[in-house]
Amino acid sequence: MAEGDPMNRPVDAPAVAGHSLDEIDTPALLLDLDAMQSNLDQVHRRIRAAGLAVRPHVKAHKCPPLARLQLAAGAVGICCQKASEAQVFAQAGFTDILVTNQLVGMRKLERVAAMAASGVRVGICVDHPLQVVQAATAARTGGCSIDVLIEVDIGHGRCGVPDAGSALALARLIREAGSALRFAGLHAFRGSAQHMRLPQERRDAVQAAVVRLREVIAVLSADGFSCGTVTGGGTGTYPHESDSGLYTEVQPGSYVLMDLDYAGNQGDAGEPPLRHALTVLCTVISVTPGHAVLDGGLKAFAVDQGLPRMTRPGWSVKSLSDEHAVVVPGPDAVPLAVGDKVQLIPGHCDPTVNLHDWMVACRAGRVEQIWPVAARGALF
Amino acid sequence: MAEGDPMNRPVDAPAVAGHSLDEIDTPALLLDLDAMQSNLDQVHRRIRAAGLAVRPHVKAHKCPPLARLQLAAGAVGICCQKASEAQVFAQAGFTDILVTNQLVGMRKLERVAAMAASGVRVGICVDHPLQVVQAATAARTGGCSIDVLIEVDIGHGRCGVPDAGSALALARLIREAGSALRFAGLHAFRGSAQHMRLPQERRDAVQAAVVRLREVIAVLSADGFSCGTVTGGGTGTYPHESDSGLYTEVQPGSYVLMDLDYAGNQGDAGEPPLRHALTVLCTVISVTPGHAVLDGGLKAFAVDQGLPRMTRPGWSVKSLSDEHAVVVPGPDAVPLAVGDKVQLIPGHCDPTVNLHDWMVACRAGRVEQIWPVAARGALF
Repeated sequence: MAEGDPMNRPVDAPAVAGHSLDEIDTPALLLDLDAMQSNLDQVHRRIRAAGLAVRPHVKAHKCPPLARLQLAAGAVGICCQKASEAQVFAQAGFTDILVTNQLVGMRKLERVAAMAASGVRVGICVDHPLQVVQAATAARTGGCSIDVLIEVDIGHGRCGVPDAGSALALARLIREAGSALRFAGLHAFRGSAQHMRLPQERRDAVQAAVVRLREVIAVLSADGFSCGTVTGGGTGTYPHESDSGLYTEVQPGSYVLMDLDYAGNQGDAGEPPLRHALTVLCTVISVTPGHAVLDGGLKAFAVDQGLPRMTRPGWSVKSLSDEHAVVVPGPDAVPLAVGDKVQLIPGHCDPTVNLHDWMVACRAGRVEQIWPVAARGALF
Repeated sequence: MAEGDPMNRPVDAPAVAGHSLDEIDTPALLLDLDAMQSNLDQVHRRIRAAGLAVRPHVKAHKCPPLARLQLAAGAVGICCQKASEAQVFAQAGFTDILVTNQLVGMRKLERVAAMAASGVRVGICVDHPLQVVQAATAARTGGCSIDVLIEVDIGHGRCGVPDAGSALALARLIREAGSALRFAGLHAFRGSAQHMRLPQERRDAVQAAVVRLREVIAVLSADGFSCGTVTGGGTGTYPHESDSGLYTEVQPGSYVLMDLDYAGNQGDAGEPPLRHALTVLCTVISVTPGHAVLDGGLKAFAVDQGLPRMTRPGWSVKSLSDEHAVVVPGPDAVPLAVGDKVQLIPGHCDPTVNLHDWMVACRAGRVEQIWPVAARGALF
């Protein structure tokens, strides 16, 4: 039985180092270390060769040991999406964290200020005066300074100021906060551009963003504000931010893991396809002549980007319920038996990882390390 | 900062008792205690009035304090779907647990045997000889006895034996295991019947199941096997199992929480609609004239049964991304402002609860208790 967890959860991991895949308890998140390292090297090389900084988004994997490998491969720091997520990484020793999100609510800003006061360089994004006011209050109370980036909507239609005038008003408010806040530049991310299927579409989207960002930068500059950092981009568009002549850093996240959705993009010239490093291992628990049932369902796979895909030839996922997957064979599929282990590639990696407490890091079919998904569920 | 969690996660809850809804950190799972109790009383009363036992499925809420309220309202025990989930409840003091699932893999059966050896009455479901063999091995090693129910496929097309002959073969295998296993009866659940929209369809589905189950029981009985327990059913069909004359216990799960999908069912005669007791509280973090953005997305809401619904009149959810919801106003909607708190009803309660570490139990807009979602992520 599990012991020592204040949440009263079983904290026993699904495997130990040295296990073969067949010995891992299921359903379990598997990371292929070779595929992951290949992805990491390729993307970092491309961005750094263009002279930009790499700041990976750890919301994709939520694992401090994996983020350490990203730093070892030249990343300058990390991005998080939540204040509590950032705290997990600060606690694990990370010292340069950008929260690429609007934080509203004093408890969240107090989390940020606590990190800043402990020596972490921490940045946040704003698009509304209330966010600036709350950040300044928390920083003053905490006796620290918080970096602030203004988010510009470059076509995503979610957060971000719509125009240069709004950006200028926010920048002035940041300046008025004195030493509590430090204006650091612009954040500009268009999630929808990441998933445009053709390279030309993605390049056009980034070029349109650059035009809009140059206007904002000119207006800010005329008032004495220097945009030292222009940050954004991701797994779908990183070659285009790299070649933009404007962005100073790129924030790829999914690239280390890869999922079915990103694999649907037609690749950019000169960039080989990234490898599927993430799978979920399941056990066959029931069979009939027409189907087999796996022990992982909606609590093991996120399905917002579609059903997962079996790596076993000829088999496909028919449906998922809370705790089961029903999988069906094609005409030439080798039958499955109760007790067989199978791997599935998730449709969408970020919310799939967020369902699991452990990531089992493997190489050549053997478990090397077991990492807690330490920031899983860090929603605040 | 959080302390004391071996997973290195922030374990600070989003609220404390006495908070108003506006003081709760977000996104947070809210439980309306009055609505929950009303649902619980209504469903238990109906089942018990027909002379059947209530064995609620705790995979829906994963909270021991809520399961204790179910026992207080007359439940005879609980259902779990995973061995590790059952362990969380065993550790919290529950002594009668049925795992309504096929368990394959010795680590899972060892979990079950450990519970049985510690005095918990624990049952499992089987539809294949390997499951019986593994359970017998674990029980013998653990020096304990495990209850075994044979699952019969009554039209769900997932797990379960297809016919009486297969059931008889398994029952004999269970008998051969001697004191390690105890044949306890049949498990018969049809998830698809729960969501049939018309009462007549649901009644027909249960009646068809009863015909099939009677055939299995007759064959088993002729060989000396007594099906003391016939268990199954759920939130969609409980009046029909109650009136079946065959089922001995019913396993409702979602009824305490209710979600949008179940609310789509046309109710049964004499049964008032169950109330939406579960919502997710979010904060507005960004606004434009055409939309607002909330701080909860795919990591706060399961979307396999559709998008969540705003309780605020005139507003609806346009899209969810990993950490954000974009919500849009109808013609008469009162505008939202940055910092506003809003509630949303999830499309599907079980996998939504499974995303959260805490359930904030409220009454009349005030926090009464904060419950750890102790079995969240108990996948094994």
